[in-house]
Amino acid sequence: MPGNSFGQALRVTTFGESHGPAVGAVVDGCPPGLPLSEADFPEVMARRRPGTRPFDSPRSEKDQVILLSGVFENRTTGTPIALLIHNQDADSRPYEPIRDTFRPGHADISYHLKYGHRDHRGGGRASARETAARVAAGVIAGKILDPAGIAVRGYTVELAGVRAGKGDIEGAAGNPFCCADPAAAAQMTEALEAIRTTGDSAGGIIEILVTGCPPGMGEPVFDKLDADLAKAAMSVGAVKGVEIGAGFDSARMTGSESNDAILPEGFASNRAGGILGGVSTGADIVLRAAVKPIPSILMEQQTIDRHGKPVRLKLSGRHDATAVSRIVPVLEAMVLLVLADHYLRARAQMTGPFQNNPQPGFFEEG
Amino acid sequence: MPGNSFGQALRVTTFGESHGPAVGAVVDGCPPGLPLSEADFPEVMARRRPGTRPFDSPRSEKDQVILLSGVFENRTTGTPIALLIHNQDADSRPYEPIRDTFRPGHADISYHLKYGHRDHRGGGRASARETAARVAAGVIAGKILDPAGIAVRGYTVELAGVRAGKGDIEGAAGNPFCCADPAAAAQMTEALEAIRTTGDSAGGIIEILVTGCPPGMGEPVFDKLDADLAKAAMSVGAVKGVEIGAGFDSARMTGSESNDAILPEGFASNRAGGILGGVSTGADIVLRAAVKPIPSILMEQQTIDRHGKPVRLKLSGRHDATAVSRIVPVLEAMVLLVLADHYLRARAQMTGPFQNNPQPGFFEEG
Amino acid sequence: MPGNSFGQALRVTTFGESHGPAVGAVVDGCPPGLPLSEADFPEVMARRRPGTRPFDSPRSEKDQVILLSGVFENRTTGTPIALLIHNQDADSRPYEPIRDTFRPGHADISYHLKYGHRDHRGGGRASARETAARVAAGVIAGKILDPAGIAVRGYTVELAGVRAGKGDIEGAAGNPFCCADPAAAAQMTEALEAIRTTGDSAGGIIEILVTGCPPGMGEPVFDKLDADLAKAAMSVGAVKGVEIGAGFDSARMTGSESNDAILPEGFASNRAGGILGGVSTGADIVLRAAVKPIPSILMEQQTIDRHGKPVRLKLSGRHDATAVSRIVPVLEAMVLLVLADHYLRARAQMTGPFQNNPQPGFFEEG
Amino acid sequence: MPGNSFGQALRVTTFGESHGPAVGAVVDGCPPGLPLSEADFPEVMARRRPGTRPFDSPRSEKDQVILLSGVFENRTTGTPIALLIHNQDADSRPYEPIRDTFRPGHADISYHLKYGHRDHRGGGRASARETAARVAAGVIAGKILDPAGIAVRGYTVELAGVRAGKGDIEGAAGNPFCCADPAAAAQMTEALEAIRTTGDSAGGIIEILVTGCPPGMGEPVFDKLDADLAKAAMSVGAVKGVEIGAGFDSARMTGSESNDAILPEGFASNRAGGILGGVSTGADIVLRAAVKPIPSILMEQQTIDRHGKPVRLKLSGRHDATAVSRIVPVLEAMVLLVLADHYLRARAQMTGPFQNNPQPGFFEEG
Repeated sequence: MPGNSFGQALRVTTFGESHGPAVGAVVDGCPPGLPLSEADFPEVMARRRPGTRPFDSPRSEKDQVILLSGVFENRTTGTPIALLIHNQDADSRPYEPIRDTFRPGHADISYHLKYGHRDHRGGGRASARETAARVAAGVIAGKILDPAGIAVRGYTVELAGVRAGKGDIEGAAGNPFCCADPAAAAQMTEALEAIRTTGDSAGGIIEILVTGCPPGMGEPVFDKLDADLAKAAMSVGAVKGVEIGAGFDSARMTGSESNDAILPEGFASNRAGGILGGVSTGADIVLRAAVKPIPSILMEQQTIDRHGKPVRLKLSGRHDATAVSRIVPVLEAMVLLVLADHYLRARAQMTGPFQNNPQPGFFEEG
Repeated sequence: MPGNSFGQALRVTTFGESHGPAVGAVVDGCPPGLPLSEADFPEVMARRRPGTRPFDSPRSEKDQVILLSGVFENRTTGTPIALLIHNQDADSRPYEPIRDTFRPGHADISYHLKYGHRDHRGGGRASARETAARVAAGVIAGKILDPAGIAVRGYTVELAGVRAGKGDIEGAAGNPFCCADPAAAAQMTEALEAIRTTGDSAGGIIEILVTGCPPGMGEPVFDKLDADLAKAAMSVGAVKGVEIGAGFDSARMTGSESNDAILPEGFASNRAGGILGGVSTGADIVLRAAVKPIPSILMEQQTIDRHGKPVRLKLSGRHDATAVSRIVPVLEAMVLLVLADHYLRARAQMTGPFQNNPQPGFFEEG
Repeated sequence: MPGNSFGQALRVTTFGESHGPAVGAVVDGCPPGLPLSEADFPEVMARRRPGTRPFDSPRSEKDQVILLSGVFENRTTGTPIALLIHNQDADSRPYEPIRDTFRPGHADISYHLKYGHRDHRGGGRASARETAARVAAGVIAGKILDPAGIAVRGYTVELAGVRAGKGDIEGAAGNPFCCADPAAAAQMTEALEAIRTTGDSAGGIIEILVTGCPPGMGEPVFDKLDADLAKAAMSVGAVKGVEIGAGFDSARMTGSESNDAILPEGFASNRAGGILGGVSTGADIVLRAAVKPIPSILMEQQTIDRHGKPVRLKLSGRHDATAVSRIVPVLEAMVLLVLADHYLRARAQMTGPFQNNPQPGFFEEG
Repeated sequence: MPGNSFGQALRVTTFGESHGPAVGAVVDGCPPGLPLSEADFPEVMARRRPGTRPFDSPRSEKDQVILLSGVFENRTTGTPIALLIHNQDADSRPYEPIRDTFRPGHADISYHLKYGHRDHRGGGRASARETAARVAAGVIAGKILDPAGIAVRGYTVELAGVRAGKGDIEGAAGNPFCCADPAAAAQMTEALEAIRTTGDSAGGIIEILVTGCPPGMGEPVFDKLDADLAKAAMSVGAVKGVEIGAGFDSARMTGSESNDAILPEGFASNRAGGILGGVSTGADIVLRAAVKPIPSILMEQQTIDRHGKPVRLKLSGRHDATAVSRIVPVLEAMVLLVLADHYLRARAQMTGPFQNNPQPGFFEEG
């Protein structure tokens, strides 16, 4: 009933507040014998870390992941893996003035109405800082999926109103906006700079591409693969919409436009986004998530305090102009966690072929 | 690990295939003492039932819900409520010719790749027939939410390319397309007739409006209210996208456009769709789901059989021209189930105010 | 949070009251392709059925198990299997006089205090009738375990103060008391007859023996195999104690007496009862459960009614003199469900050897 | 599917190996607003800590509990509470000689057969060190139950063959054997000394008494209160048997001996141990657990190494002569966790009376 665990066969439980001593996660259910050490984390943690991209907040965290358990001699043991990330550069003083004031677009007010008592510093548990634990947990999910040839890549397809192609997916991670389209990235820089100058912020759309996913993953009728992916994406704070394959465009298609013809070598198109009836088909899985602009803007806003009194709020302090690029590795991690969970779940029920011979391609012509 | 249960405090488990003896559900966790009898089901079951709307398939099912347990003297007892709906008009003969052929856009191929052995008749477990059990379960969820003043209404906001307003939400249930805009409904009839004539089918977009939801529902960080709603919506077979509040439009807004100003009497706008940080704020919850066109079309399509051999497929038999109107009560049911589950979940953790005094309005000015 | 589901990878949800229309179960997570038909149930159902043994109540139920879903052409499909057992010989009239009176030793009073509103007829949901669904579900668990060579057998080792040996485990199922010791069975008949004559009832002890269980089953630290077995046994209404291996006798041993020496061919003894650290070792699993006497006796008893008024209660109607023999197949079913669940769970986490080569024996000397 | 979480409404996830950097727990679902600080832990942690009792091993751990999250200004926030306990005095050198040898009575061999790769140092995850996290989590459960007047006390009723009365339950915690009978405690000292001199170890029986438990807790039919208590007790490594109320003695009673007469002011006796039909009755809950002797003895034993070769094993190093007294607070913690979980679970389903007015006494005569 509490909500800080995710997954069933691979279960992640996260904890921690933005300005508490640490954030972290316990990952339970990881198969034994997989290679894992603290050296596996820094690269991906750096992609989510604040202060490493031009439009990021200057909070400087090393985000070093400490392994407290579940690993022995650099291999997983099958017991729970506890991951700890200390908070080092948390400065709570800027939050004192807004201790009793609800920032528009933030969880301040909903957490106050729910819990009554909350750690307001830096957003507390509702802070994006919480996602550091998700990214770290995603590394472990990746270790499970790697040997099966399942790969997950995210990239920004829209930012601050600028749409981007996806010609260079491999290069996206090295791009300031995780954008697979260098020309669009340059336009994004301009558009974002213009928005930032006014003290405002920008949103965007991220696409996640999964390659190498074997058919047969997903548990109908409720734990469909797309249903769990939708939950995973929407559980990231700033995400307001999610779609699979042709997504909302499907609603405007006819059946003959929407159906993917099936050929002996695979599907002729991929409007389904790799999932039919909640079960993976072997085609690439394609998911898009809409990210709202960061609510912490430097413009004056109308709000109330905890006594219901009207307040004119003007924030200062360190705030990003957009969260989109930092959310890319978070969404990748969430998709990795869903896939690793369903990979292990499928293994429990499927006696023969799935376990030993996940069909990476498709049908052999008979 | 299997996927046929949904919810935690209110847990629904469904079963049944399209052409088996019955479909049904077990609803566990319902509070005792609520009024419930078999007479509570026919009205809403009729809204989902095939053959009752102009563009529906002619399969005629009474969809009578039989209560097998959990109710005594027309009140719930707190023990599991088993709901049974017999399949009466299932004619499997039309499915014999496609026993070994995969229909494009259907779960035929993914189920085959996953399970190996499946009931192909009428789509088997992947059939929309399964949703009858969800709608019946939703009635019980409604009984939990009614006393709290929480109401859920769905309506079609787009069908076959025709967009609709939402001026008459109360009247939508009586409308052939569950559309809250009578003028648009007339256009939809025309557009859909044109599509049906060609043997094709159409999709659309459904909006769900929740009123009266108290603040404080939703369990961060993974079981956020919007995350569970997204999963619930995406778990319905034909849904390919879901968004909350401003949804995908948020991605194109700036922070100052996206943030809802907070006034002593409530939010000045509702771009958030009633949820911040995964927790309800007390504002209306607004969700939209994109429904793909029905894949069973009467036009010739390219596909393969179970041996991987290419096949030109031309379906006959009874098929709807659109599923949108019939999915409206299914989505309502799924949203009811999420809300009832979270209502009971919140009650477990929240000692005082939530249970006894869910703030239906907002803040009292202090 | 509700409590009518059991297991994780193989999840059983039961429903039904003693005098409602039916009892039943939904079994989710069963692997596809296993042989299953309605003909698989009558034999074991007969072992639990009332009225088939000398000291049973005369309620006559056919206990025919109807398969509503999850099976096609006599093989499981991997979708949920719904099992329905109609109540046919329920006569509620004898229960009218005790509608408002709490029978000592029964759940009447605790259910009343918990739920307020309950179906009092025949014990309602608290009736042993509920266990029919468990026994039926156990048949499916057996289908999963059979191919792995895992067998579960139960037998009475004590009844009405008479202790029994276990020389004829194979013959126990055919014995009126499920006793593996024909001489003791004769004494039990006498002892029980003497007790029944006074209107009283008797308890006993049941032992469950699991052979062929591969090492490696059980999920530390909470879902240890013995922990889940203890829960399974104690979840049967009349069970008041459970022990594994040497059990309570362990408390009086020293370490040198309690430890099982390990030889290359296996353990030299089995005080551990086949489980160490919550994980199966490959040795036989041995569990014993203490069954209290049936509380419905025909002697006058002191109790109260629902208004708290004192009442002298003298029951009539149909009641068994002991439940022990009928509980044997129920305990077998619960152990089967635990083992099948853990078998599938182990398969999810264990990549290589467990899935493909469960070591039925032990170590090969190296 | 993994097994390191316990509870549903109050969910505890533990992690950590005996000789890794730390053990700990994440407690999710705790109501907000409860007083909690690091000062709440030392007293109970000291009761479980090694090296504080005459027959304990000399490993010296401070067992300081660090709160990483979920607490702000010394009150719980409703977000997950992470508890960290560093391992400080772990000396792995004594374990080098038995790196590849399986100690009889230990989980060495079952973990090896299950996981293949394990941390052998000090028992790794199978070590009793893991229970430190359970005891710490139990402190939080106690904070939930305290305001409801529910109290849990454990004491040793048998050790090394010496039985004890329970005249001084309040004084038991201060006793070296947690024994409520000072005279018996003196005999236990003698009996244990005699056993220790030979290099052997002793087991015993612990009783747990719960007072103040309101009626209505427990979720039939599987998550019965006694079923979850049995699982909780059996999940403690050394426990081999568990019983409720009259327990195994019930098996030898008749119904008239076993039934507790019901009077207007409560039950006339307590053979049921406070639970009927899996639901608390308001009477005291009484549970007993059989603890096997510590398997690490200093006498020579027959075993094998990981290659299946026979080995004569003679352990040295630090080992307790009995674990019974240190297990008392662990069992108390497990019972606290079960009760707090079920207290919150009952609150979810029970609309009115349970939440606001748990009947601490019984019926008012009407």
